[in-house]
Amino acid sequence: MIGLILAGGIGSRFWPLSRRRRPKQLLDLLGGGSLVAATARRVEPLCGAERTWVCTTEELAAAVAAELPGLDSSRILGEPSGRNTAPAIGWAVRTMPEAARREVIAVMPSDHWVADEDAFREALSRGAAAVERGDHEVVTVGIAPAWPETGYGYLELEAPAEPLGVQPVLRFTEKPDAETAARFKASGRHFWNAGIFLFRGTVLLDLYREHLPELATGIERLVADGLDAARRREIYAGLESISIDYGLMERLDSIGCVVADCGWNDIGSWGLLAEALPADGDGNRTVGDTLAVDARDNLLFADEGAVAVIGVEGLAVVRTGDSVLVVPRERAQDVREIVERLVARGRLDLL
Amino acid sequence: MIGLILAGGIGSRFWPLSRRRRPKQLLDLLGGGSLVAATARRVEPLCGAERTWVCTTEELAAAVAAELPGLDSSRILGEPSGRNTAPAIGWAVRTMPEAARREVIAVMPSDHWVADEDAFREALSRGAAAVERGDHEVVTVGIAPAWPETGYGYLELEAPAEPLGVQPVLRFTEKPDAETAARFKASGRHFWNAGIFLFRGTVLLDLYREHLPELATGIERLVADGLDAARRREIYAGLESISIDYGLMERLDSIGCVVADCGWNDIGSWGLLAEALPADGDGNRTVGDTLAVDARDNLLFADEGAVAVIGVEGLAVVRTGDSVLVVPRERAQDVREIVERLVARGRLDLL
Repeated sequence: MIGLILAGGIGSRFWPLSRRRRPKQLLDLLGGGSLVAATARRVEPLCGAERTWVCTTEELAAAVAAELPGLDSSRILGEPSGRNTAPAIGWAVRTMPEAARREVIAVMPSDHWVADEDAFREALSRGAAAVERGDHEVVTVGIAPAWPETGYGYLELEAPAEPLGVQPVLRFTEKPDAETAARFKASGRHFWNAGIFLFRGTVLLDLYREHLPELATGIERLVADGLDAARRREIYAGLESISIDYGLMERLDSIGCVVADCGWNDIGSWGLLAEALPADGDGNRTVGDTLAVDARDNLLFADEGAVAVIGVEGLAVVRTGDSVLVVPRERAQDVREIVERLVARGRLDLL
Repeated sequence: MIGLILAGGIGSRFWPLSRRRRPKQLLDLLGGGSLVAATARRVEPLCGAERTWVCTTEELAAAVAAELPGLDSSRILGEPSGRNTAPAIGWAVRTMPEAARREVIAVMPSDHWVADEDAFREALSRGAAAVERGDHEVVTVGIAPAWPETGYGYLELEAPAEPLGVQPVLRFTEKPDAETAARFKASGRHFWNAGIFLFRGTVLLDLYREHLPELATGIERLVADGLDAARRREIYAGLESISIDYGLMERLDSIGCVVADCGWNDIGSWGLLAEALPADGDGNRTVGDTLAVDARDNLLFADEGAVAVIGVEGLAVVRTGDSVLVVPRERAQDVREIVERLVARGRLDLL
């Protein structure tokens, strides 16, 4: 199987740890190295380093390459600008040699957490087998909801998950409200959309031509011989900015789903990072030099210096070299507002 | 009038800003320099630099002297060990030349906040005049409660305060419970005990001989001619450790009170510091580089780097070079527990 790791994006919800030049996928949020390196290691038994590709941004390509010393830099692609996932995946697949394009490709984000990596790989293998057999053009990975998350998209299946099966997806649902999320969690037929897809590259490009014809044409122009960097940058900037979920997957009649029982979250915020860390007896999750007195259910994160709290509950307290952030865990997704304010104030020194 | 500024103590409730070698009185908590320098400046119009004395610890004497360049270092006394206020004041007064001891001495802590310094000085002058006239052996300073504080001691007068009077204190009350504090605030007859006392030095030493005879004897041994440093240290360490409030003032039959309408607090914690800082439209009080989004009534203090909060209320968030503290403002006095834990863990690097 070919692995295609998506490592663009800015991850501003991890401010103050994430910065323009050090976004989330380059951070060591869970111990054991950067998230992008952990992602490559996770699929190494399936793909091997020589069959792993990475799509990131031009600006981050060198930093990503430094995290992945076993990967040939020719397979680390740098987008000239950010145009969301449909252009990035289409361009990366089209850039691969034709033999690779004919194989099953697993595309996945670079910044997720997986507890049981064997179970995760088993699900990917099951999905790849279904693609190889031709049962589905595309197979996606679903995760049984561990809590009624309102920040994720959901996949609805016809029937409760079969542990070793591949089942058709009835529909995609974007971020639900709390009531709907609770119903989804209880149903047994709704699964978190992990944003991981398996397909043959050639089939994906056919689907682009059918459902995203302008994007498909743009991608062909990008890989034409003799294109200079300025022209490539210009063409890329003109591609439609659209996610592969919305632009393609949700429009397909038939898409398969493998349910992975592996413990997963997208570490989309400090609050979700907390879910991926072990809790002490008071429910506090800590990284670095921290002290909690009479405090419960907090995330305390210190990449240098010390963080001490007393008498607080449900907070994320994050300390990096020059900045401190305090936010209730349940509002951690709003950290983007901090970043927006800093942008508005011209505080590039903090971004 | 002679000024005697008490500048010992460790102020551990201002951790992480206060450290063993940089206690509260040496901090610039309100802008405008260290608290001890602000205290000396405040009484300078009454005492003049040549009539101002400071009692601190041996360890801090050099740092205190550096904050008070106008003061002759012979008038900055360093206690060999911490034995609370009664020994410190008695020893400092006994150390003064006899002519000074016969004058009115105003003794005051070095770490308080005063909003209206003219009103404060007027009250001191009023008290000094009463001592000079012989109306009272000791006059203390009361402050009309701005809120029903449970962390302060209170002075009870017979009648509501006369703005320009000197009235007898009926009794001292130690830190009251919340219900009692609310009753005190409403009474018009209860005042915060600011811990500031006026007396003639000779009279004070007589009162020591009457009420604290062993301490008085120890102090006389301390000032005997020809004592070497080791012996002085030994004698000082053997003095009874007791506050002047408990050891003397609360035992006197007659003590006068001048009420100062000056805006005062003892900055006894991060929570009380907040009361002394101006609030923005959301009730946030900030020092340094801070950002508050959808947040109310917080104290944000950054002596370097940036502090950002979102969605929190009523917290103190303090950042110093190597440490971060987060505590509800109303629990700020419990920061001592953090310091105790750090001591127990041997974390001298943070203390």
